[in-house]
Amino acid sequence: MTHIALEWLDGRLRILDQSRLPWDQVYLECSDYREVVLAIEEMRVRGAPAIGVAAAYGIALGASGIRATGSDEFLAHLDEVMKAFAVSRPTAVNLFRSIDRMRTAARGDGIEEIQRALVDEAQRIHGEEKAATGQLSELGSELVEDGFTVLTHCNAGPLATAGYGTALGVIIAAGHRGKRVSVLATETRPLLQGARLTAWELQQEGIPVTLITDSMAGHFMQQGKVDCVIVGADRIAANGDVANKIGTYTLAVLAGENGIPFYVAAPTSTIDLSIPSGDEIPIEERSPDEVTDIRGVSLAPQGTRAANPAFDVTPNRYVSAIITEKGIVREPYVEGLGAAVSPAG
Amino acid sequence: MTHIALEWLDGRLRILDQSRLPWDQVYLECSDYREVVLAIEEMRVRGAPAIGVAAAYGIALGASGIRATGSDEFLAHLDEVMKAFAVSRPTAVNLFRSIDRMRTAARGDGIEEIQRALVDEAQRIHGEEKAATGQLSELGSELVEDGFTVLTHCNAGPLATAGYGTALGVIIAAGHRGKRVSVLATETRPLLQGARLTAWELQQEGIPVTLITDSMAGHFMQQGKVDCVIVGADRIAANGDVANKIGTYTLAVLAGENGIPFYVAAPTSTIDLSIPSGDEIPIEERSPDEVTDIRGVSLAPQGTRAANPAFDVTPNRYVSAIITEKGIVREPYVEGLGAAVSPAG
Repeated sequence: MTHIALEWLDGRLRILDQSRLPWDQVYLECSDYREVVLAIEEMRVRGAPAIGVAAAYGIALGASGIRATGSDEFLAHLDEVMKAFAVSRPTAVNLFRSIDRMRTAARGDGIEEIQRALVDEAQRIHGEEKAATGQLSELGSELVEDGFTVLTHCNAGPLATAGYGTALGVIIAAGHRGKRVSVLATETRPLLQGARLTAWELQQEGIPVTLITDSMAGHFMQQGKVDCVIVGADRIAANGDVANKIGTYTLAVLAGENGIPFYVAAPTSTIDLSIPSGDEIPIEERSPDEVTDIRGVSLAPQGTRAANPAFDVTPNRYVSAIITEKGIVREPYVEGLGAAVSPAG
Repeated sequence: MTHIALEWLDGRLRILDQSRLPWDQVYLECSDYREVVLAIEEMRVRGAPAIGVAAAYGIALGASGIRATGSDEFLAHLDEVMKAFAVSRPTAVNLFRSIDRMRTAARGDGIEEIQRALVDEAQRIHGEEKAATGQLSELGSELVEDGFTVLTHCNAGPLATAGYGTALGVIIAAGHRGKRVSVLATETRPLLQGARLTAWELQQEGIPVTLITDSMAGHFMQQGKVDCVIVGADRIAANGDVANKIGTYTLAVLAGENGIPFYVAAPTSTIDLSIPSGDEIPIEERSPDEVTDIRGVSLAPQGTRAANPAFDVTPNRYVSAIITEKGIVREPYVEGLGAAVSPAG
């Protein structure tokens, strides 16, 4: 990695503004938690694991800024901070997991001790995500054979995880093991995370990448040019249904139709055992401007109505395996995911 | 129609520059056939039927400009004109059908009579396409029920046909019959014919249209929000395999997976009985710049490699019906398409 998505700098959070990549490498230096909330909302930091880490640091930042006369007042203010993060984006479960962990960690003898405990917990969450993405990348790399062309969607690299990446982590780890791997990257409309971020990260790793529009993926699968599909995830239900960037369901159906393995790579922090199936995952609807405009340029007649669901849900029957840091989970997912998430797993 | 894609004006061909729509309504006034060849290559005129009509007029224009001392010399020059059109774009069969018809029509007593015969034949081809798209639109409108939401891809409207449209013709005809129809239009990367042209044409017709990215189509089908898919075609093989804008195969697979009818609307001039299956349809590969840039704005890191196949092939098993001016053809396609194309059909 030649870039660092997120960095805690002695009381400030430094965020690489992913919305301006690859053209401008600009860092946001956040000293107010509301700047972190905004960075999440505006997708300056994005990717489920990275959102979880940013929210944890953001809560620690918010806690540091609270001036209160006693613990009760402090905790009331802290609750407001947490609520601001809870409504920033709805789909990635890592965000809510971080909030829960930070709430549990908010203990100590006096305000300063609680503040320190929260910074510690945020750093622990970050460290765990780094370790988990490193481990799942290594494990998953066994699925990628020498000479493979892997199709991926959106960006599930170091940027998206504040660690080693999930889908791209697996691909990069296979490359480090000496396997020749090439990548077909979908551009991922509307926000072009594939064109902007995946192409950029793979170029830095020296892994050959060819950019395609989202609409071309089926053609390349049909032509026998894709050996496997690997994507990340924003939330995985207990039964293995996967919410991920809009377009993922389409790729899963196409992979199934063409007999191509479809893998999901995600740390266990992305698994939400509290919901039995993907039907209950909230799908964020973002501004139609993201569809009708691109980098300030209009793509459609003025006044055109557009829809903009940011995610879709891939039913578990299309998923060949889920790559986690605890192992590669296959059907039946209810059992495998349950075991992976359990403390003893 | 408030706009005319192609118009023959007493020895000149007026082409509405579709590459600049919907922002600029600019007409190319072609008096040299090479301008028409370039307009086809650069997709200023596009859509299989419209390309066929433009090529016919372009050949008539080329013939008018030939200065020759005798018929043999004239016909040798005319052959060069036809060759220039034959290499302009490879996939739409209407282009090659027009060239064949113009070659056959190049008869007469002396050069002037041949020149007149070619203008007559081009106008006949245009008239036949108008009539065919009008008829197939009426026939196809029976498949669209009151209250339907129709998903379409790319642009298969009046602009694409120099007539009434194919997929959009069917939708518009259903609207004229008083059915309430709404449309989900895929933006159709890379060149955004859906965002730019389909949205524009439907807005003019007063038909509600919602723009989506290509990657969202599967999600809306999965959610039960699509009643049928209707697309046009660039070439249909004898067995019913369909070449159409890249991304069509993906929509057909998704429709099949979700139990949604997938219709192809095309005049019989788009059917190529000379090739048994879609495997033999040449697929045009266009410049990678169309993928890495949009309206002059870069979408990916400099130097990013991109693929740009302009079409894909949908196997006949995914096609619920092919709507032609001779009737709605269903499996077995070999027989139905053969009958539709036969002179007595």
